[in-house]
Amino acid sequence: MLAFNFTLFLPKFFDLNILQYQSDFLSYLESQKMVREPKNLYLPIEYILQLGGKRIRPILTLIAADVFSGDYKKALPTALAVEVFHNFTLVHDDIMDDAPLRRGKETVHEKWDLNTGILSGDAMLILAYQYFENYPPHIFQKLAKLFSKTALEVCDGQQLDIDFETRNDVTIEEYIKMITLKTSVLVAAALKMGAIISEADEEQAQHLYNYGLNLGIAFQLQDDYLDTFGDPETFGKQVGGDIIENKKTYLYLKTLEVANEEDRNLLVKLYNEEPKNINKKISEVSSIFKRNNITQHTKQLIEYYTNKSFESLDYLTIPKEAKEGLRAFGENLMSRKV
Amino acid sequence: MLAFNFTLFLPKFFDLNILQYQSDFLSYLESQKMVREPKNLYLPIEYILQLGGKRIRPILTLIAADVFSGDYKKALPTALAVEVFHNFTLVHDDIMDDAPLRRGKETVHEKWDLNTGILSGDAMLILAYQYFENYPPHIFQKLAKLFSKTALEVCDGQQLDIDFETRNDVTIEEYIKMITLKTSVLVAAALKMGAIISEADEEQAQHLYNYGLNLGIAFQLQDDYLDTFGDPETFGKQVGGDIIENKKTYLYLKTLEVANEEDRNLLVKLYNEEPKNINKKISEVSSIFKRNNITQHTKQLIEYYTNKSFESLDYLTIPKEAKEGLRAFGENLMSRKV
Repeated sequence: MLAFNFTLFLPKFFDLNILQYQSDFLSYLESQKMVREPKNLYLPIEYILQLGGKRIRPILTLIAADVFSGDYKKALPTALAVEVFHNFTLVHDDIMDDAPLRRGKETVHEKWDLNTGILSGDAMLILAYQYFENYPPHIFQKLAKLFSKTALEVCDGQQLDIDFETRNDVTIEEYIKMITLKTSVLVAAALKMGAIISEADEEQAQHLYNYGLNLGIAFQLQDDYLDTFGDPETFGKQVGGDIIENKKTYLYLKTLEVANEEDRNLLVKLYNEEPKNINKKISEVSSIFKRNNITQHTKQLIEYYTNKSFESLDYLTIPKEAKEGLRAFGENLMSRKV
Repeated sequence: MLAFNFTLFLPKFFDLNILQYQSDFLSYLESQKMVREPKNLYLPIEYILQLGGKRIRPILTLIAADVFSGDYKKALPTALAVEVFHNFTLVHDDIMDDAPLRRGKETVHEKWDLNTGILSGDAMLILAYQYFENYPPHIFQKLAKLFSKTALEVCDGQQLDIDFETRNDVTIEEYIKMITLKTSVLVAAALKMGAIISEADEEQAQHLYNYGLNLGIAFQLQDDYLDTFGDPETFGKQVGGDIIENKKTYLYLKTLEVANEEDRNLLVKLYNEEPKNINKKISEVSSIFKRNNITQHTKQLIEYYTNKSFESLDYLTIPKEAKEGLRAFGENLMSRKV
């Protein structure tokens, strides 16, 4: 077991520590025998878990356990529960979105078939709960309770996202609520679970939850921003994907709020007609966003939620260096270009 | 709270008591506000739960709690967890089987769409876990642990069922294993959960589990039997459904074991060709089964598992009347024609 070293949280050593968490998490993931009989059920689970990704959520669980007790390794089963759950949502969401690719590789329902995607996903949701069995009853119940609440909220968020596709009166407030449920609550819960394992008091755990909740909103808004304005050289996905899919992101909704009638009508028209030329559509929509200062509006809102997130750190009774580490993590996340 | 009355378990009052459990369960189900926002996620859950069914599994949970403590009402949340989980499997299985109807009504994915079926099913699996939050941590952990184990086994069973569709070398032993996982473990776990809530000791709870496990196998074999030889007047589903779908049930597998080469080849041929006349196929396959004494073989195996189930009752240290009630319940279930 590594000794807890607050200096690892100092910004200058920051990357190193994250790499340590990540490496410990990946070793733990590797040590789990995912594949058992019947193989057709478990091979897809191993496949999706090994596709990679930034592993942000499990790392947050380890960080949270570390800042409250210095013993982050005991949080590894919960970190894995969080990652398995996250990947379960990807498998089922990819079916719902009819997505052929995930992280550049075939999605589960594409590589196997629809039924495999559904059933392997179901099994992953159950497996996630099983990792909590590593803890004594009072911790187990707290983890499972928060997990169930969060998992249901993620379903609610996914349903709202689906509902919004066919609605033309979505407000910005509703949009923020949707991304909070679909994305942020899991980031927040990942952190709070780490705090629970380290037996932090409820109020402290809740402040960490709030840090994660607002950081998660900022993260998703940044995702929306990069989807349209990211550098095609470094952005992992196709720039303009949201525009192609007529996603009513913050960029779209804010335009409807601030633009003149002409631009509003043009945007709605572009989102409702079959495009003759996809690249032309992307560039026209981007231009509407730009000339209405949507880039600025979005950056301001990202900053608002990032600051709101960092404010929660003030209430934490953990060493100053640990707070700085959490802030550095957030800043690092918010400076990403991919 | 109703006082526990063992006389209710005497066969002559038996139906009355089951009706009481059933009525209390339905009242409890009714009292739960299933529908909340977003409605498109929760309306399908309410819909499937209100389609009816015999409610055998939740009733078993109540019976088990009753025989060990006399207080079955505290088992109601767990009974609901079991029923919600069972209905979750129906929603996802109906997608995988492409089934248009369930209990004579449209299936969820048919009434709504594929995505609603997937997402509402996911939410039901999570909701099932939440009902355990009504219990203190040590009971909660025992229930959730058994539930996760069981739920994963049901997924394994479903996967084996899918795997068997494209295999031509399935053994009877493998078939029994598949139906054990897909059907029986949930019946067994429903009972054991009732025992856990009444804080029965582990060994006693396990004997009740075994009673349910073997009864569940007998029940499924009887389902196979009735699917081909049931009375069309009283059997709820289309008689011959398994034959139409080329299901490799016990009837089919046993024929391959005992029939002469001519009958074996004929059966395999009928199962592998596109039938010109479905009713002719059903009657031809039924004739092969009959002339090979498969009705007798199946009845014998049903009896074998029913007796094996009842043997577990001998080990239970509960009042004689309670044992008689459990036996009567099993006999009642095995005498069904629907």
